[in-house]
Amino acid sequence: MTKAEFPSQHQPLAVPALGEPYLLTPGPLTTSKATKEAMLRDWGSWDGAFNTLTAQVRKQLLSMAGVEDDSFACVPLQGSGSYSVEAALASAIPRDGKALVLMNGAYGQRATKTLEYLGRDYITLDKGDYLPPQPEEVDALLNANPDVTNVFIVHCETSSGILNPLREIAEVVETHGKSLIIDAMSSFGAVPLSVDDIRFDVLVSSANKCIEGIPGFGFVIIRRAVLEAAKGRANSLSLDLYEQWVYMERTGQWRFTPPTHSVVAFHKALEQHQAEGGVQGRLARYTRNRDVLVAGMRKLGFKTLLEDRWLSPIITTFFSPEHVNFEFKRFYEELKARQFIIYPGKLTVADSFRIGCIGQIDEHIVHQLLRAIADSLLAMGVELEAA
Amino acid sequence: MTKAEFPSQHQPLAVPALGEPYLLTPGPLTTSKATKEAMLRDWGSWDGAFNTLTAQVRKQLLSMAGVEDDSFACVPLQGSGSYSVEAALASAIPRDGKALVLMNGAYGQRATKTLEYLGRDYITLDKGDYLPPQPEEVDALLNANPDVTNVFIVHCETSSGILNPLREIAEVVETHGKSLIIDAMSSFGAVPLSVDDIRFDVLVSSANKCIEGIPGFGFVIIRRAVLEAAKGRANSLSLDLYEQWVYMERTGQWRFTPPTHSVVAFHKALEQHQAEGGVQGRLARYTRNRDVLVAGMRKLGFKTLLEDRWLSPIITTFFSPEHVNFEFKRFYEELKARQFIIYPGKLTVADSFRIGCIGQIDEHIVHQLLRAIADSLLAMGVELEAA
Repeated sequence: MTKAEFPSQHQPLAVPALGEPYLLTPGPLTTSKATKEAMLRDWGSWDGAFNTLTAQVRKQLLSMAGVEDDSFACVPLQGSGSYSVEAALASAIPRDGKALVLMNGAYGQRATKTLEYLGRDYITLDKGDYLPPQPEEVDALLNANPDVTNVFIVHCETSSGILNPLREIAEVVETHGKSLIIDAMSSFGAVPLSVDDIRFDVLVSSANKCIEGIPGFGFVIIRRAVLEAAKGRANSLSLDLYEQWVYMERTGQWRFTPPTHSVVAFHKALEQHQAEGGVQGRLARYTRNRDVLVAGMRKLGFKTLLEDRWLSPIITTFFSPEHVNFEFKRFYEELKARQFIIYPGKLTVADSFRIGCIGQIDEHIVHQLLRAIADSLLAMGVELEAA
Repeated sequence: MTKAEFPSQHQPLAVPALGEPYLLTPGPLTTSKATKEAMLRDWGSWDGAFNTLTAQVRKQLLSMAGVEDDSFACVPLQGSGSYSVEAALASAIPRDGKALVLMNGAYGQRATKTLEYLGRDYITLDKGDYLPPQPEEVDALLNANPDVTNVFIVHCETSSGILNPLREIAEVVETHGKSLIIDAMSSFGAVPLSVDDIRFDVLVSSANKCIEGIPGFGFVIIRRAVLEAAKGRANSLSLDLYEQWVYMERTGQWRFTPPTHSVVAFHKALEQHQAEGGVQGRLARYTRNRDVLVAGMRKLGFKTLLEDRWLSPIITTFFSPEHVNFEFKRFYEELKARQFIIYPGKLTVADSFRIGCIGQIDEHIVHQLLRAIADSLLAMGVELEAA
């Protein structure tokens, strides 16, 4: 594979510090120097200057989801993305409600586990490791279970790297008049998702995914009427989304100590997101990363878990080759020695590994990765036959 | 006041970047350049190198609490310090248990609010805005309420700045055979608190207090037997301390995405804590800060809320002067223009404000602050009579 086959559309990105690996994972990911440098000062969490940054971040996230009025609110929440998912589930699902959870991987499973803690009733459509939920299956389940109040879907399930058929399923959910909750953790900011196109009540994502920030908080974009109805529903003081919102609206401050440096870095990351052309610009770069990756890996003899049409531009699962000398742990270390960190697989049915396409990575870096993979295979004595 | 009156024991600390104010607050606080610079690289949260840092941090925190065996565990948790308090309460108090909450400010109050969410029974000893709970009061309450299982105390209640009589109360709690939970959020790392001296089951603190880290996570130091008994007690998946611990012990990783940069900064902050002489070194600097502050403020005509023996080396509450020209908002802005951020008061009975002594602040900076305060009063036309 030569660069001529995949002509560059971008300037090469900055190389990380000496010895620092690229993170080809679903996040935390490789962030820009400017984003990290934004953390080189301290901010008073009570001070007006910091409140202004928080307000700008909230507004820009709403705008990214196509919200230009006050029909939705954006509520950031301290903690990892899963904290925001838990807060969203506890807010959006009435205590006597019932959720339909669409599962095809770890994050659908985690949602059901969360619902167990929250004491919310649910049913599931479990498609196993990677098969997409089908709109007609959702339709049938909603017909058979009219007491379902909410449907939960993971947009990009990074367990396999699948981009689930959100639009088609959202239409079915809308037809049934149910409330849709989207776990857009790994897609928001890089896969278009707008209130103009898709009917949803709740969308959850986090700082350290496609907007390329630093981990420390997640955020929930939630229909205002749904949030207002959530008063008193939460099972946790810390994760009470309604109270977080009310306090933030009233004071401009976070209810408890915010991850100030992470917020400021995220503000800087949003600037760069916009400069790259917003969601479309980021989608183009990530898609190019994935295309170069998948073509290159196939040329090296690897096989993707998913058919092309299900491949997300976020992360791709490859089967581990059946060669006797291939061992993931060794492969991981060989690649790490070559400055690339990849991700283990999560399939129950077959050995696999994952490579992310997100973060401050462009096709030049993917080409470097492919060379590093070829070198690693050579070092391991693994010869593969190209597809 | 001259420097000669308060001779320096330390080299002056680094000045923040141009225009960046000192944060004289209960945290987030002014951190060192080295701590912030540790955030200038990205870490894979799954990678062995990051797991090593996490393990070191946990070990050093246990050691700071005097734990040298495996009788206690240290469990860090994503989110603000209040998340860790909630997780600790949910773990340490059985579902059919009953807590005695000692209250003299916002953080005792927040504990009762948390217990409401958790559905745990409790009684309180409410001392109002700032009066310390007395050991004999605790003794009487425990005699009258033998069904109490746990006692909750805030070590340093930053609402007023009081350092509560922890040792005396811990002795009473031990005599009654009850389980003591200490909110040491604002004291741990600067006020000695060791398992050798004080009998407790749970201690909670966070990254961005006296260890001078970056906000993003808290941590719980908990008696292993108490933690083991906590299986299945949590009301929240995200805040399930037991599961967080089990996962971390098994994999070396955080259960959900950690605030990687905050963890790495904390690791660096711990190095500096040790270099300063550990808890004793930090206590000496903060105490000196407070002594210079209080003496200087009194000389300027301000009065402290508390008698000297209750003043913590963490933060001090001053009454707002009754002068007609004194208005807190204006005072805040005048000081901010002079590169100092102070903190509003939280008393219900009288107007007040607070000034913190923690973070990368030494007596030289406190002297600068005192000059800035004198200037601000002049600018506001406030003349006070020295005590």
